[in-house]
Amino acid sequence: MFRFQNLSLLSLLSNAQTKFLHFAVKKIVLPALLISLSIGHLSAQKLARIEPTFWFTEMHNPALQLIVHGENIAAGTVSLTYPGVKLVKVNKVENPNYLFLDLTIASNAKAGKFPINFTVNGKKIFSYPYELRNRDKSATRIQGVTQKDFIYLLMPDRFSNGDKSNDVVKGLAETTLNRDSMYYRHGGDIQGVINHLDYLKDLGVTTVWMTPEIENDMEKASYHGYAVTDHYKIDPRYGTNELFKKYVETAHAKGMKVIKDIVHNHIGTGHWFFKDLPMKSWVHQWPKYTQTSYRDQAVMDTHASQADRKKMLDGWFVPSMPDLDQQNPYVQNYLTQNHIWWIEYAGIDGLRLDTYPYNDPAYMADWALKLKAEFPNLSIFGETFVSGVPNQAYFTEGNTVNRGFNTHLPGITDMAVKEGIYETLNGKNGWTDGVNRLYDVIAHDFLYKDPTQNCIALDNHDMSRFYSVVNEDFEKYKMGMALLLTMRGIPQMYYGTEILMKNFSNPDGLVRADFPGGWNGDKKDKFVAKGRTNKENDAFNFVRTLANYRKNSVPLQSGKLMQFVPEDDIYVYFRYNESIKGTVMVVVNNADKEKTLKTNRFAERTLGTTSVKNIMTNENISFNEIKVPAKTTLVLELN
Amino acid sequence: MFRFQNLSLLSLLSNAQTKFLHFAVKKIVLPALLISLSIGHLSAQKLARIEPTFWFTEMHNPALQLIVHGENIAAGTVSLTYPGVKLVKVNKVENPNYLFLDLTIASNAKAGKFPINFTVNGKKIFSYPYELRNRDKSATRIQGVTQKDFIYLLMPDRFSNGDKSNDVVKGLAETTLNRDSMYYRHGGDIQGVINHLDYLKDLGVTTVWMTPEIENDMEKASYHGYAVTDHYKIDPRYGTNELFKKYVETAHAKGMKVIKDIVHNHIGTGHWFFKDLPMKSWVHQWPKYTQTSYRDQAVMDTHASQADRKKMLDGWFVPSMPDLDQQNPYVQNYLTQNHIWWIEYAGIDGLRLDTYPYNDPAYMADWALKLKAEFPNLSIFGETFVSGVPNQAYFTEGNTVNRGFNTHLPGITDMAVKEGIYETLNGKNGWTDGVNRLYDVIAHDFLYKDPTQNCIALDNHDMSRFYSVVNEDFEKYKMGMALLLTMRGIPQMYYGTEILMKNFSNPDGLVRADFPGGWNGDKKDKFVAKGRTNKENDAFNFVRTLANYRKNSVPLQSGKLMQFVPEDDIYVYFRYNESIKGTVMVVVNNADKEKTLKTNRFAERTLGTTSVKNIMTNENISFNEIKVPAKTTLVLELN
Repeated sequence: MFRFQNLSLLSLLSNAQTKFLHFAVKKIVLPALLISLSIGHLSAQKLARIEPTFWFTEMHNPALQLIVHGENIAAGTVSLTYPGVKLVKVNKVENPNYLFLDLTIASNAKAGKFPINFTVNGKKIFSYPYELRNRDKSATRIQGVTQKDFIYLLMPDRFSNGDKSNDVVKGLAETTLNRDSMYYRHGGDIQGVINHLDYLKDLGVTTVWMTPEIENDMEKASYHGYAVTDHYKIDPRYGTNELFKKYVETAHAKGMKVIKDIVHNHIGTGHWFFKDLPMKSWVHQWPKYTQTSYRDQAVMDTHASQADRKKMLDGWFVPSMPDLDQQNPYVQNYLTQNHIWWIEYAGIDGLRLDTYPYNDPAYMADWALKLKAEFPNLSIFGETFVSGVPNQAYFTEGNTVNRGFNTHLPGITDMAVKEGIYETLNGKNGWTDGVNRLYDVIAHDFLYKDPTQNCIALDNHDMSRFYSVVNEDFEKYKMGMALLLTMRGIPQMYYGTEILMKNFSNPDGLVRADFPGGWNGDKKDKFVAKGRTNKENDAFNFVRTLANYRKNSVPLQSGKLMQFVPEDDIYVYFRYNESIKGTVMVVVNNADKEKTLKTNRFAERTLGTTSVKNIMTNENISFNEIKVPAKTTLVLELN
Repeated sequence: MFRFQNLSLLSLLSNAQTKFLHFAVKKIVLPALLISLSIGHLSAQKLARIEPTFWFTEMHNPALQLIVHGENIAAGTVSLTYPGVKLVKVNKVENPNYLFLDLTIASNAKAGKFPINFTVNGKKIFSYPYELRNRDKSATRIQGVTQKDFIYLLMPDRFSNGDKSNDVVKGLAETTLNRDSMYYRHGGDIQGVINHLDYLKDLGVTTVWMTPEIENDMEKASYHGYAVTDHYKIDPRYGTNELFKKYVETAHAKGMKVIKDIVHNHIGTGHWFFKDLPMKSWVHQWPKYTQTSYRDQAVMDTHASQADRKKMLDGWFVPSMPDLDQQNPYVQNYLTQNHIWWIEYAGIDGLRLDTYPYNDPAYMADWALKLKAEFPNLSIFGETFVSGVPNQAYFTEGNTVNRGFNTHLPGITDMAVKEGIYETLNGKNGWTDGVNRLYDVIAHDFLYKDPTQNCIALDNHDMSRFYSVVNEDFEKYKMGMALLLTMRGIPQMYYGTEILMKNFSNPDGLVRADFPGGWNGDKKDKFVAKGRTNKENDAFNFVRTLANYRKNSVPLQSGKLMQFVPEDDIYVYFRYNESIKGTVMVVVNNADKEKTLKTNRFAERTLGTTSVKNIMTNENISFNEIKVPAKTTLVLELN
C-alpha cells in the first residue's frame, strides 16, 4: 500500500498539461483540460478504466503494470490484498488523471477476484474488482502458423455481414453505413467470417488473418482498423470480445487457425488515452506536424543521420494516427501486455505486426522476447513494406545482417518474392529479369536466419489486386497461384483472389470491395459454385486443388527447397525431404511457346524417377523429357 | 635427400597420360605424349624449369613447394644442402615429367645460392642453382591502396608504346602488330606507362592498375592479359621482369602506387604446364567442354544444387582458358607462391583478383590469410561482376552475410555503386529510382564489414565507357566524376576517361582503343593540353582539380560518410571527421531545373557553418540557402 502527498493541480497543469497544448498537433483537437477537478473529490464515477481489464495466473513474467485512468486519480491512495499478488509501486505521472500500478503475481497465485481500493484522506472512495483468470494451456490454441498453413487475409468490414444488428452502433463517431463508397462502413463483421469458415476450409485455407478488429472509433474511414481507439475492445460493429473468442475457438474446432493483426506504431486520434494523454512523451511530439519519411533505409543505414532516423521512427504515419513513443516504458508495458492479453484471452495462433520498420527497434526486440517467453509456439511476422531482400532481412532475427543487434523477429511480409513473381509473369527474360529475378530473390535467402517464416503473398489490402496486375491474364493468374502455393514461406492470399476479384490500389479503397454474396440480398453469391462464372470456378478450383494438395504433401508442409539456375527461360525448383518419392517439382515456363525440358540435370533430386504426377490434372507423365506449355507453372509430384 | 624406385613409364602412361586423352577438352590440342622417354636418360637439357624461380629469406611461412618440370624427372633422386634449408619431401605425381619438392626455410636462413642436385643411379646428372634473396622491407613498397588513393586502370597494350623494339617478339605465337584492329597487338608497353607517370601524377592519379602484364603467349587476342601462359614472366612485348620492377620503383619514387591484376581462376591454353599437365586434376576436367554458368548465385544460394555450384565454379570461362582446379593442393601452392613472389620481388602495393566468384571459396580464403600474413599492408579487392549489393557483400570478409565462412577478402569491385550513379544520371526519380537508387545502394553498406575497401568505378575494360553511357552529356559526366571522387571507397578511373574517350562494350574491344598520343607519330597527342580540344581540357581539368583536392582533404582521405534521405530530387552527403571545418558536402541535383537547398536539416554535420567553398570554382558562398544548378553535383568544403 502506498500513500502519497496531495499534489497541487495548478502546478500539475503548468508542468504537464499546458505542455500538451504547446505540443498540440495541428488539426487535432486536444481534450478539454480537466480544470474542474478539485483535490479530494475522487468519486467512483470518475474511475474510467483499469487495463489490462483482467489478467492471468501462471504467466512467465510475474510483473504486471496496470494503467488506471480517472479524474484526479493521482490524489488517492491505492491498496490491495490477495494471496500471491503484491502492489510493488504506484507511479504518478504528469497527468493527475493517471496512475500506473506495478504488481507482481507469484507463480502460485490462484485465479479469483480481489478489490483494488482507492482511498482519499483515509476514506475508501472506490474499489475495483480485479480478476485473475486461469491460463488455458489447451493444445489446440496458440499453435503457431507455419509453412504448413495457407493464410486468407480479409477485411472484416468487407467480407460478410453476419449480424445486421451491429451495422450501425449509436455513440460511435461514424454511424453512416454506405456500401456504395469505399470509405464508409459496409457492415461486414466477425459473425460473417464465422459463417464462412467452412467455405474457407473447403477452399484449402487453414488460417484467417483479419485486418484489425479492435475498436476504431474515428469520424471517417474507420473501417480499415489501423486507427485503434480502444486496445481492449473489439469494434462493436464487428462484434464483442466474446464473439471474437468464439470465432477463434470455432476456427480451432475446425482445425483452422487465426492470426491477429496488431499495431504497435500508432493509434487513432479518437483513442481515449490520446484525448487525455498520461504524459507528453506518450506520443512523439514535434514542434509542428511532422510525417515519417517512410524511409526504412534511415533505420539500417550505417551512414544515416540522426535527423533522418528520428523522422522515420518518430514522424507520424498520417495526421489522424498519433505515433506512440515506444521508448516510454509505460507505453512499452501497455502495448506488450495488451498483446499478451489478447493471445491468452482468445488463443490466437499468430501475430502480424503492422508497419514494423517504423517502431522503436530496441523495444520491438524486447517485445518479441517477452511474447515468445509467454507463448513459445506463437508465430510472428512483421509488415515490411520495403524494397529489396536486404531491407527485409535487416528486420529479421538472428543477426544475419544486422550486426550487434538481434530483432528477435522470426519473419516478415516478403515483398521481394512478390516482386520476383510479378517480374516472372510480366517481365521480359534477361540476365536478372523475368524468371531470373525470382531465382535471384530466392538465392538471397542466405540473408535470413529462416526464410520459411516469411509470409509470402501476391497482394494485400494495400496493393493492386493480383489479377489486375497480370492484366486479367488467366494463365498468368494460375502461374502465380502455383508459385505462391509451392514456394518456401507461409503463403497468404487476399480475400476474393479465388474468384478473380480485381482492381488497382490507386485510388485507394477499390481493392477493398465487398465479397459478392457476403450480404443478404447480394445479386450474386460467389461463395457458392453456381453464383460464380465458369472462369471464376476455374480459378476457385485451381486454388482449391492446390491448397488441399498442400495439406497432405510433407515436402510442401515442411520440406526443403532446391532451385536450379534457369535455363532456356525455364525455372525449376523442388520441395523435398528425405524420400525422392513424393518430392514436389515445380516447372515454370514463362516463355510464349511450349518447351521441352530435359530432366537429367536435376538428378540429385530425382534419381531413379521415371514418371511424375501432374497435381492439377492427376495425370502421370513420363519423366525423361517433359513438355511444358507456354506460360505455365507445372506442379509435379515424383512417383 | 630422397631416393625412390624407378617407375615403369608404360604404367605411368596408362595411369595418367592416357587419362589426359580421355578428359581432353574439345578443340584443345593436347601435347604429344612423351613416348620417346626412357628411364635413366635424364639429361641437363631436359630440366625445363623450377618455380618459384627464386625465393626469399624471412618469410612468415617457412614452407616452400618447388615445381620441377623436366623430361622423366620423376626417375631421378633429389638432394640439396644449405644452412637452414631442408628438403622435407619429394612428391611424385601422375606425370613423370614433374616433381614437387617440399622445402622448409628456417627463419635464420641467409640469402645465397645453393645447388639442387638431380641424380640417377647414383650419378649426378643435373644441378640447379637455387637462390634465396633478402626480403626488402623498405617502407615505400607494399604500402596498400586505400580511400586516399585514386586508381588509373589501363591496358598496357593500348596506353603508350615506349619501346618499339619489343612490339613484335619472335618465337611467340602471335606476332602481328595491327593498330587498326581491336583484337591484335598494338605495341603499348610498360616503358610507355613509365614515360607517363608524371602525366598521371599531375592529373591527380596516385595508383596505376594495369590489366595483367605477365606472358599471354596465345595465337590471337593475346593483348588483354587474362590468358596467362607463364606465371613468372612479364610478357616480352611489355618488357622484362626487371623493367616491371623498375616501373613499380619509379612509381614509388614519385609517391605513387601500383596494383597488380592477377588471375586465380584460369590460364591460357598456351600455358607451358597445360601443354604437359602434371596431373589430370590440375585443371577442371569435364566429359565434354562445359562452360561456367556465370551465376554467382549458385555459390551463395543456400538452396542451390551441387550441379549448379559445380558448373559455376568448375566450368571453364571460355574454351581458350582452362579452369584451374584450386582444390588441388599443388595448384594452391603454385598460385599462392607465385603471387607472394611477385609482391616481394617488385614491391607491389595492392592486388586486384580477376573473376573472384569463380574461384574455390575455401582456397581463396586460405590464400588471403597467407598473403596478409606475409604482407600486412597489402590491399586486395576481388572482381565481382555481379548484380546487387548482397551478391557483392557475400564475397567480402567478416561474416557479415556469409555465415560460418569468412572469405577474408577485404574489398570488391563495387558495381552496385556504379549502377546507383548511372541511375542517378540517366534514370527518372522515383521512390527507388533516380538518385534514390544511389541513396539506397549506399544504405546497404551495413552488409559489409568495411565498404571503404571497395573499389568504386564508373567503367572499366569490360564495360561501355562512362561518357558514352551518359550519351556524351558533359554535365552528367561532371556529376559522375564528382560522385566518383567523393563517395566512400577507392575511386578507379579507366584510362582516357579524363579526355572523354568513348564507345560501347558491344562489340567487344571498342572500349580498348589506344590513348591518342601514346604512339610516336599519332596525329593528336592528348597527353598535352594543346593536343586536347577545349571540352577535353575542361574534362581533364575537372578531374585534375578534384583529384588533386582529394590529396589534401582529410575527410575524403579517411573521413566517415553521412548521407541524408533525398528530398525534392536533391541528394546530400558529407565526408567528415571530428572537425566541422573542412567537412566536404556533396550536393546532387539531378533535376532539370535549378533548386534552392535549405541547409537546416543537415545541422548535425554543419553546426555553426555560415559559408562554404565551391571546390571547383574556389568561390565562397553563403550556407543558409544554396542554389544548385540543374544537373549538377556541387562539391563544397565547409569554412
